[in-house]
Amino acid sequence: MGFAQDELTHDAFLGGKLHLWQPRKGYRAATDPVLLAASCPAKPGQTVLELGCGVGTASLCLHTRVPVKLTGIELQSAYAALARRNSAEVGTSMDVIEADLAHLPADIRARSFDHVLLNPPYYGPGTASPDQGRDTALREQTPLAAWIDAALRRAGPKGCVTVIHLAERVGDLIELLNSRAGLIEIKPIASRAGKPARRVLLRAHKGRAARSILHNPLVLHDGATHLSDGDDYSEEATRILRHGCSLDF
Amino acid sequence: MGFAQDELTHDAFLGGKLHLWQPRKGYRAATDPVLLAASCPAKPGQTVLELGCGVGTASLCLHTRVPVKLTGIELQSAYAALARRNSAEVGTSMDVIEADLAHLPADIRARSFDHVLLNPPYYGPGTASPDQGRDTALREQTPLAAWIDAALRRAGPKGCVTVIHLAERVGDLIELLNSRAGLIEIKPIASRAGKPARRVLLRAHKGRAARSILHNPLVLHDGATHLSDGDDYSEEATRILRHGCSLDF
Repeated sequence: MGFAQDELTHDAFLGGKLHLWQPRKGYRAATDPVLLAASCPAKPGQTVLELGCGVGTASLCLHTRVPVKLTGIELQSAYAALARRNSAEVGTSMDVIEADLAHLPADIRARSFDHVLLNPPYYGPGTASPDQGRDTALREQTPLAAWIDAALRRAGPKGCVTVIHLAERVGDLIELLNSRAGLIEIKPIASRAGKPARRVLLRAHKGRAARSILHNPLVLHDGATHLSDGDDYSEEATRILRHGCSLDF
Repeated sequence: MGFAQDELTHDAFLGGKLHLWQPRKGYRAATDPVLLAASCPAKPGQTVLELGCGVGTASLCLHTRVPVKLTGIELQSAYAALARRNSAEVGTSMDVIEADLAHLPADIRARSFDHVLLNPPYYGPGTASPDQGRDTALREQTPLAAWIDAALRRAGPKGCVTVIHLAERVGDLIELLNSRAGLIEIKPIASRAGKPARRVLLRAHKGRAARSILHNPLVLHDGATHLSDGDDYSEEATRILRHGCSLDF
């Protein structure tokens, strides 16, 4: 069951470098998949798997910066179909597979990737939203442990897993990653200078010696209060979100 | 085997609010135990256990700010003796117990504390230093897991564990704490603005709902490079290290 054309919007990302079809109601990408893509240290030609790719926002943002070979896993067929359409319109060939990441098909389980990206659902079980697709995208029906397990298994021996999540889950993420990954890089994302992080980006490098790097936070907005819906972005956030630059940890 | 008086120095902490005897050669407290003490959210009259208390620096810095009931565990008798002497000269009665924290005496194992403080050794097994006492204080002869296990066991049901360590060990610390503590607060300590953290302070609150808070870093020094041995401290670091204020996460 796909979306009808009038249920879709065609939205600009990376300051207009990229346009993507998204459902008007439902899960709509904001800054998180863009920050995720900007944090992936992929090199041209490397293989990248995105778990829960939705309409392909993170993968296609990454591809806009670095030409990589994209594979996406998406549980919901209507979102998978949009990811395929977005990928084709952008002129790349993302391989989008409709599957539950906890039960991946054998051909995916037989492969490993240079990079795995994921932006797992943020909210635990609770009252369902009226929009089923948005609900599936936002709620943690698959436990975080299953997401991290799938990511670590599909990353190659020198592979890198990049994940964005609520900062309040950083302890859970690190508990799941620490004994199985080598180097773990932690990048706090704060809305304002001096405030606790709202989001966290983690990069786990499987092939590197086990230790952590606790990086300086990225601050998204200048000033002390929220003035408008986005255009008090800091210089660094503007470079990433509007100009498509990498997020350097 | 204690230290002879001419092997000791009498050093000022907290801008001269506190003076402590330390061995001239051997393990000498720098900023870490002072930051540890400043981070402990103890209230007057609460009980505080310090694991590996050395000459008592963290405990006595804490007591200078908040009158608490102090107990210290120290493996090395010469350091334990100095902790007792320092405590007496400061006019408090710290209960200093000579013991291996992995094999605590039964009367300590029977007790729980409102707060547990620890500043575990930073360096792994390697070439021994010529100074045995300094070596024991700095090297990780007891695994970090044993330190964290002892701390979590000795903290009461609503107890708080406060620990300072190298930032590169934050993954290991969180892996050890996350499933057994409730709320985990992470405070990066950076030498300079914009740089990765060198140290990390963690507070684990056993009685509170499980989640993490990733706080804004404390920056110790102003400017981009190290000008001198301490007096380019930032305003916030000066308040903590020179005026004895709390380190507010």
